[in-house]
Amino acid sequence: MNKHGGYYGKNEKMIDFSVNINPFGTSEYIKKLLIDNINELHKYPEIDGFSTRKSIAEYLNLDNDNIILGNGAIELIYLFANIFSKKKVLVIQPTFNEYERAFKMFNCIFYNYINSENNGFVLDYECFAMEIKKINPDVVVICNPNNPTGIYTDYSLIEDICKKYSNTIWFIDESFIDFSLKNNGQHLIEKYNVFLLRSITKFFALPGLRAGYGIGNKVIIERMKKLKQPWTVNHLALQVLSSFFRDEKYINMTYNWIDKTRSEFYKKLTKLNNISVINSSSNFILCKHKNILASELNKILNNNNIYIRTCNDFIGLDKYYFRIAIKLKEENQIIIENLKTLK
Amino acid sequence: MNKHGGYYGKNEKMIDFSVNINPFGTSEYIKKLLIDNINELHKYPEIDGFSTRKSIAEYLNLDNDNIILGNGAIELIYLFANIFSKKKVLVIQPTFNEYERAFKMFNCIFYNYINSENNGFVLDYECFAMEIKKINPDVVVICNPNNPTGIYTDYSLIEDICKKYSNTIWFIDESFIDFSLKNNGQHLIEKYNVFLLRSITKFFALPGLRAGYGIGNKVIIERMKKLKQPWTVNHLALQVLSSFFRDEKYINMTYNWIDKTRSEFYKKLTKLNNISVINSSSNFILCKHKNILASELNKILNNNNIYIRTCNDFIGLDKYYFRIAIKLKEENQIIIENLKTLK
Repeated sequence: MNKHGGYYGKNEKMIDFSVNINPFGTSEYIKKLLIDNINELHKYPEIDGFSTRKSIAEYLNLDNDNIILGNGAIELIYLFANIFSKKKVLVIQPTFNEYERAFKMFNCIFYNYINSENNGFVLDYECFAMEIKKINPDVVVICNPNNPTGIYTDYSLIEDICKKYSNTIWFIDESFIDFSLKNNGQHLIEKYNVFLLRSITKFFALPGLRAGYGIGNKVIIERMKKLKQPWTVNHLALQVLSSFFRDEKYINMTYNWIDKTRSEFYKKLTKLNNISVINSSSNFILCKHKNILASELNKILNNNNIYIRTCNDFIGLDKYYFRIAIKLKEENQIIIENLKTLK
Repeated sequence: MNKHGGYYGKNEKMIDFSVNINPFGTSEYIKKLLIDNINELHKYPEIDGFSTRKSIAEYLNLDNDNIILGNGAIELIYLFANIFSKKKVLVIQPTFNEYERAFKMFNCIFYNYINSENNGFVLDYECFAMEIKKINPDVVVICNPNNPTGIYTDYSLIEDICKKYSNTIWFIDESFIDFSLKNNGQHLIEKYNVFLLRSITKFFALPGLRAGYGIGNKVIIERMKKLKQPWTVNHLALQVLSSFFRDEKYINMTYNWIDKTRSEFYKKLTKLNNISVINSSSNFILCKHKNILASELNKILNNNNIYIRTCNDFIGLDKYYFRIAIKLKEENQIIIENLKTLK
């Protein structure tokens, strides 16, 4: 089982830069919705969340049959892997390591395409297309923007590959897409074999609730539904999934924050000695110290109440990489000051 | 996917006898716990619920390694089925039909042992032991007390079979055990290959929360954990699973109600013309009308705002069977009055 999910220690002063959660926390709008619905927990949640799928479909201008709900995004990763059991899967690395565990659990033949460090982990179109031609995978997996690099891959590039290799099915994890302020891949789902994974965990700061959804080609969604367990999404998660998009105040506040804070934080990080920084389109930044192992760095920072995500469990990253969440200005400044003192 | 989970129509006056939920609803103690924890949803739930397993282990006087948590009992049914993929499974019928879907999904060889209607659906020890000898199943599945018959099978009888066929693994669904006011099977888990499924859905009226747990032999629990998805149990469910057993006021109130109301309700039902009734050790009662199909009966009752569970999707039950939940005295009286008027 994945070992991450944030700092679990007892230091209450610890600032947890290891978890990529919206620093504004859960919104008042959503908290009210949750409290109002606690009186409804004596009823079963809708077995496949029909009403919630309908709300999301209306919001996205899609059909109900394009939507599937999950107990967090994780359930949908495993469900997707289940329908492609024993097939060939090509995963663009370095990325979230739960894909590997899920596809291997369902006996898929697992291939890694590792983006080059020298190319700043940006996808090399020619090189990747050649790899698809060579392997002929049933499924391609990409996280966009990617965790942990923060790199956003343009959908025009993905569409070019979709066109060229039209039998390949794409699993695109868009858990962080709303932080990118860039286009999502919705226009591709009916044109090609595309499934997009969405989560409200990160943007709406609700990892404790377990709420995710997927949108995709109706054929893929139908196959996933056939293997889905009943009642996986709790009633409170269904209510939030039905209306998160109405919380415009919080959404706009977050857009304004990420737009401004990300570029400022990035600039400050790039000015530090001995640290190289990947420019991110998400709410976290991948860094590498030239001399200090990330595990050592974490120990040093822990003493000053700062916790970071070491990255040596990501395929294609060495032990010097670490990932830090973008937080509010004051907290970002604290980690900058701490990193400045290193040699 | 299972089609049940209660009445979903728009008649707000409908009394839903189809769902087996504690009629006292969610307790004030638990509601307060939930509200207090809404501010904690911005953090990831513990990845495998270590603290919650510890609380349950202390309460039951077991080790942490005897406990596994689930997103409702359902997750644990599928997880258990997954570890016995392709094995021989013998299920005591008629029973909850999700076992069949789960074991078949993992390509188990599925056998039914159908308790005889003539024997009031009580397990015939000799006959069942012969069936085990004949089939030599890897896994036996029993729901105790059973859904939908309400029959409780004595653990001394189960232990006799465990002794005789010590290689067989038992999956015992105790989701309704607390309503039985009888012994549970905890004393068997380390002595034999036994897994007990528990749920707080029914007794604590929390189907919307999705919280279940399993206790068992450490070898079985360890195998299940290896295939478990991360973060499946939401933070609120973890909190309730950590302390439901402290809600003594609600627990005692429920014990008093079920003890008295069940026998009264049963007696009244047995006095009705043309209806045969199975004596239950749970919070529901299985009935059969001699002349009217359960689907027809439901239509008639719906007109008077009563909804029942037809049972023709249970293996071994015909179309005349229906299941009704035991509710508070006044509601039970309403269905009695309605059933009286039938011919």
